[in-house]
Amino acid sequence: MGKTLAEKILSLKSGSDASAGDIVVSMVDLAFVQDTTGPLTVREFWDNGFTKLANPSRTALFLDHAAPSPQRQLSTDHILLRKFARDTGALIFDVGEGVCHQLVAEKLARPGDVIVGADSHTVTAGGLCAFATGMGSSDIAVAFALGKTWFRVPETIKVVVSGRFKHGLYAKDLILHLIGLIGADGATYKALEFSGNVVNNMTVAERLTIANMAVEAGAKVGLFPSDRQTLEYLCSVGREADYQPLAADVDAVYERVIEIDATALEPTISKPHTVDNTATARELKGTKLDQVFIGTCTGGRLDDLAVAAAIFKNRKRHPQTRLIVTPASQKIYLEAIRLGYIEILVQAGANIMPPGCGACLGVHQGVLGDGEVCLSTANRNFKGRMGNPEGFIYLASAATAAASAIKGEISDPREVM
Amino acid sequence: MGKTLAEKILSLKSGSDASAGDIVVSMVDLAFVQDTTGPLTVREFWDNGFTKLANPSRTALFLDHAAPSPQRQLSTDHILLRKFARDTGALIFDVGEGVCHQLVAEKLARPGDVIVGADSHTVTAGGLCAFATGMGSSDIAVAFALGKTWFRVPETIKVVVSGRFKHGLYAKDLILHLIGLIGADGATYKALEFSGNVVNNMTVAERLTIANMAVEAGAKVGLFPSDRQTLEYLCSVGREADYQPLAADVDAVYERVIEIDATALEPTISKPHTVDNTATARELKGTKLDQVFIGTCTGGRLDDLAVAAAIFKNRKRHPQTRLIVTPASQKIYLEAIRLGYIEILVQAGANIMPPGCGACLGVHQGVLGDGEVCLSTANRNFKGRMGNPEGFIYLASAATAAASAIKGEISDPREVM
Repeated sequence: MGKTLAEKILSLKSGSDASAGDIVVSMVDLAFVQDTTGPLTVREFWDNGFTKLANPSRTALFLDHAAPSPQRQLSTDHILLRKFARDTGALIFDVGEGVCHQLVAEKLARPGDVIVGADSHTVTAGGLCAFATGMGSSDIAVAFALGKTWFRVPETIKVVVSGRFKHGLYAKDLILHLIGLIGADGATYKALEFSGNVVNNMTVAERLTIANMAVEAGAKVGLFPSDRQTLEYLCSVGREADYQPLAADVDAVYERVIEIDATALEPTISKPHTVDNTATARELKGTKLDQVFIGTCTGGRLDDLAVAAAIFKNRKRHPQTRLIVTPASQKIYLEAIRLGYIEILVQAGANIMPPGCGACLGVHQGVLGDGEVCLSTANRNFKGRMGNPEGFIYLASAATAAASAIKGEISDPREVM
Repeated sequence: MGKTLAEKILSLKSGSDASAGDIVVSMVDLAFVQDTTGPLTVREFWDNGFTKLANPSRTALFLDHAAPSPQRQLSTDHILLRKFARDTGALIFDVGEGVCHQLVAEKLARPGDVIVGADSHTVTAGGLCAFATGMGSSDIAVAFALGKTWFRVPETIKVVVSGRFKHGLYAKDLILHLIGLIGADGATYKALEFSGNVVNNMTVAERLTIANMAVEAGAKVGLFPSDRQTLEYLCSVGREADYQPLAADVDAVYERVIEIDATALEPTISKPHTVDNTATARELKGTKLDQVFIGTCTGGRLDDLAVAAAIFKNRKRHPQTRLIVTPASQKIYLEAIRLGYIEILVQAGANIMPPGCGACLGVHQGVLGDGEVCLSTANRNFKGRMGNPEGFIYLASAATAAASAIKGEISDPREVM
């Protein structure tokens, strides 16, 4: 019987014939934590009597959530993680190097890998055909020590995307539309597997954006095939040796198939306070905005900054609307400087933050005031997400965000492009 | 009898023959607050029954200390200040535009002005020959409403700087040396008046750095003459019309004259936990550093970033030493992007923060961990200043900071320049 991508990868990594519903023990190719989950992982590691990592060079610590730190306790947690890396030989990516999910994509994830991280959006690496998923800090401590973990092999929902992205439409619109369609629990513990001609032509940057938000529909993983786009991306980051082609079998068995015609998409927005509470930009037009946030693991890649810069060129943010931009990694930031995007954004009135999670999680760099409204390219709009339960968060593409920052209210990007 | 600069300005603005020791009521040419002192000022203004500003176009609110905001309460304070500006017609400079003291210099301060601000380092504008001084929030509320305030005319200490700055020596070394010499209370409620051939040749950027720290010796103001350097600066910011020459009378009476030979200066550093606890870089060489901070109103001007970029070119920060850079204003930031400084600094491993106060005051953007040591170009190293009473702060020039970041320990900049 043919296998889905999830079944294929877990079969290989567990050395068994894994089918949906099976429990397998799988090798772990990469295990990581970030600075909010890392301290607990490190303490669990020690409390369990572990002293050595199974694979130091495939164990990573990222200081990205509070980078640079806004609080004494978080700064002291950073010291703990740096010490753990020195003591065990784990990789460490310090303050300002970027968001864990982007750095995993640039430097570590390989097609066919099993990746576990103490962060919900570990699923991002599915854009590079890695079975990548978030786990709790204690699970990651065990993966650090043993180099393996267990999974129930997920059933797969196939998402076939046909047609084409029209002008002003992006991967973000597609994933928001999908989550709105199936709901926040529409894919709970399922694998989402993306295919179709739109997917085949999608860059890895776009795939990462979609895979990142698979978890917002409850999915265990969001998987893309490993193909010429994957090879092209791995070449661009100097890792062509990590390439291997990987695709589901043609006779794989899917629990469900969802077909989406990209041509019919509209610029899509998630309204407060859940990601699946979607509407079109057109429907929400005129909603006043106090802040626009472009950045992080879901909306701070070079293509996001490029589209924002194209829209902001010779334009300014609305005087009543703050603009915060956080590149996803140092590599992206440097390229954006060289390509002139950063200068355009600063002239437009942006606050450029160092690469990292930025305002997304509400510990600094743009916490909302009471009653304020933000349009964000990040992945979550839960009540309190940006540091204030009295704030209101809308999610959209970088294009919608840029167009809306100029007008000071939610706008359809096609009107300014 | 001849007059000092302080006496001259206060005579003019009080319409009286003001001499040291007199109490005068002076016109206020500019009154301002920032986001930590502003909310109290605004409440005092209302509580006193005031509704109108004396001079809306010469009343300013700066959102710089928590910019962008790291906490819900601070974000909500920002809303209050924005509303006050809308209601009264006061100028407002929002998140990311820069540090109040730099923006006052670029956009508002004029030679001969009396400037009061709810911030200790309001003295900075003395670099442009303004009688500029910090006051409490309540005093500023009254100045907002009445357009005047009262002063005891200060006695003046004349500081005559002869010789020349040798390679690797800067205005920052001079002011740290002076504070070490006279102590943190060495000029309490005095005017410091700077003169001599080194002062005559000093750019306004250097003068602002020195004036900024006059308060660290307790001074009420730190005054520089208004001369061709002042004119050149005002031209560079499009404000030549604001120029008027201004100098002390040759027969002015000084309480004390301090002579400093700039040629004899060494790169100077303030040790924890007081600014007057000075030593030379040579004496402190080898002190390990966890963080280096280059930025803000004391060390984030274009000349500071230029010297840092020159030192960092094709070099990287030490892997154990974080590097945080905060340009003092958006104008400086944009110039630094265009001149390639920002790219060099990012390649060196810097976290570039948006223009503002940055890590200086300890509410975000680089709070120290327990036991950590920071070398900073800011103006204060008091216990707890950078958000952690268990941190240790050294103060130095941008050159010393850059050289030390590369070595990971306090270093003499002359060894790498």
